[in-house]
Amino acid sequence: MRIIEVGPRDGLQNEALFVPTEAKLAFIRGLAEAGLKEIEAASFVSPKWVPQMADGAELWPQLPPGPLYSALAPNMRGLQTALAVGAQRIALFTAASEEFTRRNINMTIEESLAGFAEMARAFREAVPGGWIRGYVSTVIACPFAGAIEPSAVARVVERLLEIGVDEISLGETIGVATPREVRRLHQELAPLLTPAQTAWHFHDTRGTALANVAEALSLGAEAFDASAAGLGGCPYAPGAGGNLATDDLVYFLEREGVKTGIDPERLAQASRPIRELLGRQPDSRALRAWEAGR
Amino acid sequence: MRIIEVGPRDGLQNEALFVPTEAKLAFIRGLAEAGLKEIEAASFVSPKWVPQMADGAELWPQLPPGPLYSALAPNMRGLQTALAVGAQRIALFTAASEEFTRRNINMTIEESLAGFAEMARAFREAVPGGWIRGYVSTVIACPFAGAIEPSAVARVVERLLEIGVDEISLGETIGVATPREVRRLHQELAPLLTPAQTAWHFHDTRGTALANVAEALSLGAEAFDASAAGLGGCPYAPGAGGNLATDDLVYFLEREGVKTGIDPERLAQASRPIRELLGRQPDSRALRAWEAGR
Repeated sequence: MRIIEVGPRDGLQNEALFVPTEAKLAFIRGLAEAGLKEIEAASFVSPKWVPQMADGAELWPQLPPGPLYSALAPNMRGLQTALAVGAQRIALFTAASEEFTRRNINMTIEESLAGFAEMARAFREAVPGGWIRGYVSTVIACPFAGAIEPSAVARVVERLLEIGVDEISLGETIGVATPREVRRLHQELAPLLTPAQTAWHFHDTRGTALANVAEALSLGAEAFDASAAGLGGCPYAPGAGGNLATDDLVYFLEREGVKTGIDPERLAQASRPIRELLGRQPDSRALRAWEAGR
Repeated sequence: MRIIEVGPRDGLQNEALFVPTEAKLAFIRGLAEAGLKEIEAASFVSPKWVPQMADGAELWPQLPPGPLYSALAPNMRGLQTALAVGAQRIALFTAASEEFTRRNINMTIEESLAGFAEMARAFREAVPGGWIRGYVSTVIACPFAGAIEPSAVARVVERLLEIGVDEISLGETIGVATPREVRRLHQELAPLLTPAQTAWHFHDTRGTALANVAEALSLGAEAFDASAAGLGGCPYAPGAGGNLATDDLVYFLEREGVKTGIDPERLAQASRPIRELLGRQPDSRALRAWEAGR
């Protein structure tokens, strides 16, 4: 089972404070030591919009060897930075909701995709053998537009595949979904997308994330995004805190007999300094139980 | 779908402070107004052991009409009090773990069952048409003895059925289980116990409760225990906080298309004064999201 750790990017980007580069690096070293093999480590976004990620270019060359690292590139300028630091894996971010996309990146979905096509060409040319992830957020519901039809997700997925992304992360941005919605979306996307091309990205805003993970597993899922200690959320979605915690995901998968290769104690240790720095309780039941010695 | 609200008993019994009778009654009135139809309202236990429940006999005659109320009776003396106040539904409490039973009620399982047989006879005689629930706790694991074999649960279930209980509540006391363990236990118990005789009682200590609910639903479950705002836990199980919150359960079931008849806003209101009195954050993600206006 692949677990894509998004704490250093999606997590820290959505925390109130800037985490110093050294603390970010210590966090990422801890995650690597805990056994995480894929880590989204930076976002090459304007520091005006996301000051928490302002140090990506400084951080990147210092990343510890071992894991595969990806960087979010919101636009051509971000891509240039990613290429300049030598990133081999990039992530592009759009949504299945027009309203969300407009409020989030001030574009239509189609405009965002047109930009991505150009970025993907430039990236492939510069990095043969590179890897592109496409994020599709609001795959079940949008904080502004409400329910999202699976067919709307399918349209964006098709376009991203045309552009040539290697993987699509399906973001349940506001954490409202329950298993039947996961099943319905899976059924819509199954003709387009193989399990090897799909990662599920759940938020645990209403406690349903692991039930959704269980459903996705039963449908053949091979990859999940998660954030150590449940760091982060989404600043553009009102109240969409609650990334599924990697700690909860690892506990659940291992107890279900799915090997992750991740050491829960080291995972807890990896996020502890960050949590102390942010003055933040872990947003993970398994981690709280673990740290209470339960 | 039946939801058995255990907050006023299992919840408040495990909170640090004594909640005044008036506040308990207001809580229960709120739960009834929210649509809960079955409420465990008191435990007729020695106030020496559980001071939080000392006012059961005073509370009982003032319960608002509407819901079906049950009272936990730990022994013949508790049963006498239950009968004296006119309780029509009682609950007996044992466990699948010898070690847990010894530490919890200082008896062997068999001793506890022998006492229950006598209590059940006395109750049936005094209350024709009355209803008896048997709690079996530690059905997956024990905080002292570790993993519990499904066959050990089956033995206790068989004995409780011989004694003539109407329903068995399967308590996953320490909140470690994931769906495959629920399925394994279900398979062991299915020949003994009908869905109509079974309630699942999950704790959300590691965030797995709703995944277990989903699994139990797929196996035909018809009843779940839950505690408003996730109040309570188990004082004899180290760190076994985290009753599944009724708020999370209702959100999940309704979103899965299972009608509960429960109004989430009124449910939130019902627990609010109790939470303020206890100085306690809701231990429910759905409730936190609800109250944050998400």
